[in-house]
Amino acid sequence: MKIVSIDANVSIRRDIDTGTEMQRDAVDNIITQVVEQGDHALFTLTKTLDGADLKELRVSKEEMEAAYAHVDQDIIIAIRQAIENIKDFHQRQKRQSWMTTKEDGTILGQKVTPLDSVGVYVPGGKAAYPSSIMMNVIPAQVAGVKRIVMVSPPQADGTLPAGVLVTASELGVEEIYKIGGAQAIAALAYGTESVPSVDKITGPGNIYVALAKRAVFGKVDIDMIAGPSEIVVLADEYANASFIAADLLSQAEHDERASAVLVTTSTKLAEEVAAEVEKQLETLPKKAIAQASIRDYGVIYVARDLVEAIEVVNELAPEHLEILTEEPMNLIGKIRHAGAIFVGPYSSEPVGDYFAGPNHVLPTNGTARFSSPLNVDDFTKKSSIIAYSKAALQANGAQISALARLEGLEAHARAIDIRLEGKQ
Amino acid sequence: MKIVSIDANVSIRRDIDTGTEMQRDAVDNIITQVVEQGDHALFTLTKTLDGADLKELRVSKEEMEAAYAHVDQDIIIAIRQAIENIKDFHQRQKRQSWMTTKEDGTILGQKVTPLDSVGVYVPGGKAAYPSSIMMNVIPAQVAGVKRIVMVSPPQADGTLPAGVLVTASELGVEEIYKIGGAQAIAALAYGTESVPSVDKITGPGNIYVALAKRAVFGKVDIDMIAGPSEIVVLADEYANASFIAADLLSQAEHDERASAVLVTTSTKLAEEVAAEVEKQLETLPKKAIAQASIRDYGVIYVARDLVEAIEVVNELAPEHLEILTEEPMNLIGKIRHAGAIFVGPYSSEPVGDYFAGPNHVLPTNGTARFSSPLNVDDFTKKSSIIAYSKAALQANGAQISALARLEGLEAHARAIDIRLEGKQ
Repeated sequence: MKIVSIDANVSIRRDIDTGTEMQRDAVDNIITQVVEQGDHALFTLTKTLDGADLKELRVSKEEMEAAYAHVDQDIIIAIRQAIENIKDFHQRQKRQSWMTTKEDGTILGQKVTPLDSVGVYVPGGKAAYPSSIMMNVIPAQVAGVKRIVMVSPPQADGTLPAGVLVTASELGVEEIYKIGGAQAIAALAYGTESVPSVDKITGPGNIYVALAKRAVFGKVDIDMIAGPSEIVVLADEYANASFIAADLLSQAEHDERASAVLVTTSTKLAEEVAAEVEKQLETLPKKAIAQASIRDYGVIYVARDLVEAIEVVNELAPEHLEILTEEPMNLIGKIRHAGAIFVGPYSSEPVGDYFAGPNHVLPTNGTARFSSPLNVDDFTKKSSIIAYSKAALQANGAQISALARLEGLEAHARAIDIRLEGKQ
Repeated sequence: MKIVSIDANVSIRRDIDTGTEMQRDAVDNIITQVVEQGDHALFTLTKTLDGADLKELRVSKEEMEAAYAHVDQDIIIAIRQAIENIKDFHQRQKRQSWMTTKEDGTILGQKVTPLDSVGVYVPGGKAAYPSSIMMNVIPAQVAGVKRIVMVSPPQADGTLPAGVLVTASELGVEEIYKIGGAQAIAALAYGTESVPSVDKITGPGNIYVALAKRAVFGKVDIDMIAGPSEIVVLADEYANASFIAADLLSQAEHDERASAVLVTTSTKLAEEVAAEVEKQLETLPKKAIAQASIRDYGVIYVARDLVEAIEVVNELAPEHLEILTEEPMNLIGKIRHAGAIFVGPYSSEPVGDYFAGPNHVLPTNGTARFSSPLNVDDFTKKSSIIAYSKAALQANGAQISALARLEGLEAHARAIDIRLEGKQ
């Protein structure tokens, strides 16, 4: 891993992948097919793209139950514990509707309401990602969303991985469709005979899924479009180099474009971590991916002191930040931008990926400057409540009309005036 | 106004204006100029597009002070009262960071942090909109945003309207630039020599501003892109037809594409409102606009009962909803989708536009299904806090590793395992 001084250019931002023109055209074309032909398009596209010749799009109750035979009991217990932890953390985020009353009779407030329906995209591929299902479904459930739908591309034999089905069962999700790619996003946004549309779509996917989400945004809401994963470790001379190297590699194995960065005040630690990364890399199953990531997007910054190091961290605004310093808790207040902050030597980033409770869907690519982890608020909306009394309008009506006329909006002013004329 | 039965198609959604190809090209071209030439491009574009030959982009302290001579004292007092009301309402939205501690030493939480910097776009044109400045600036101030910048296109003489400058002064906003259109959005997103970039851009604007906001989204955050304004009035036979007509027209005068809808259980009220609208239209200064809006996007639905009427309202998911029924408060719980809900005969919609306190920046075009009024949360972000103790990791590490391996992520599992080996 390259070691550079703090004066180097510190950006780890990467260009957002907006696909090739061919990919964008393919996505537009798929969306049009689904809008025009509904289920027929879904069956045809699933046959062509996933190689699965389905009779039914929806997963049956029998399939759900049968999946349990293929998942170890230990894993089921771990999934149940993770669900409990994630639920507990998200329940603490839940907001109440509130109102304030004034002496003149005015009532103002915010009414918090869950979304009606949400669709969660679950990617296919070799590794089934139960954690992604939990992280997307649980905040929606806690928010009170009544209808939660899952979509996932079937394997060639027309099934979904057992891990996906068991996780869904454990969460109580019963409406699951065997569709993937842009066609699944189009079905969720526009609806077909078998797949009623939803109000919001969340969950990760490949470039086709990402482009389709962009295309349907506005018709429905979407979550953020995630970039490659990132970790920044902030460490001083008290930190353990092997721990840090292992954590950097746990990001690097995700993706060749993933980024792993150490910012440290200790030249000695910098050198130890660089050596440990090389050593630990050797035996990793995903060595090729991790090596490319470390080579292209891995860097160790040596700062003169913690103040300077923290400046760099805020400049990077990382998705994951680990703080491994003598007094890590005391530094949290200085961190202005980070998706998730892992504090101290035992808070390895995978603790948050699967288990601790906070969401692992986090803002990437510097967007932690203005975005938050996926959370319960993302599955609710607020409505303002304004109840003015007659007395309140009589007391304030003249000022309201004056402001309306200042803006040249006479009909606005008259809507107030007509109520001041004592007609009712 | 046309009166139809509830069985008619109830959508009031309009296509989102994504501009012509020429407009999109113009915007791309302007953004490129600003990125490449900085201030030079801003001066040149402001001369070409706004006809103003500026020496300085930033509004001076003297200009701010001089503006007070051009605004009536009554208006200043009304602005001050509105600011107080809006601040009070938004302060009640403010969230605290929180944490939860467990017996095994684990600490989990959410840290709430304001954005560093926000740019507010203030449209030019004949009517200066002080209310729009208040509604965009106050939530950012309450959130704790340190740097709040305003941009607004200058008049041909190189000045900004006095109402804009006085409102900014009253709010304590001191960093104001005389730039508008796509060039202002580009400067806020990318920064120039005189205009440091911001993290989020909010505020309404014309199609060029909207397209530029879309183009820079991702680089910075933006607020929603608003469609034409809408009002839906839900009323029974107890409602006052003149009030309703006045409120419908107060939306209609905004824009030929604005939509004004009455949903009522009373045929008699339907007919009275239709007649009142015609009558009140006659003397409106913006009669032509309001008439076109009512003709193209105005409709009165007659429902069989309140249950059915409320179904229609939820289907419409309006930006503004007024409830004028015998017991309006009791219906709030049944409203699932609305940007702002105005309750009872004295809560005319303009009360909320200017004065009551809740924000007037609201979700349009059915997006109230999943979006909220502009609020303090929009100017903060959350970071998750995860502090695991050694005991917590020892108790749960095996489950975490198992889940990581289930997903095929060996480096994740090893980052946990290395900490369980008792090396530290």
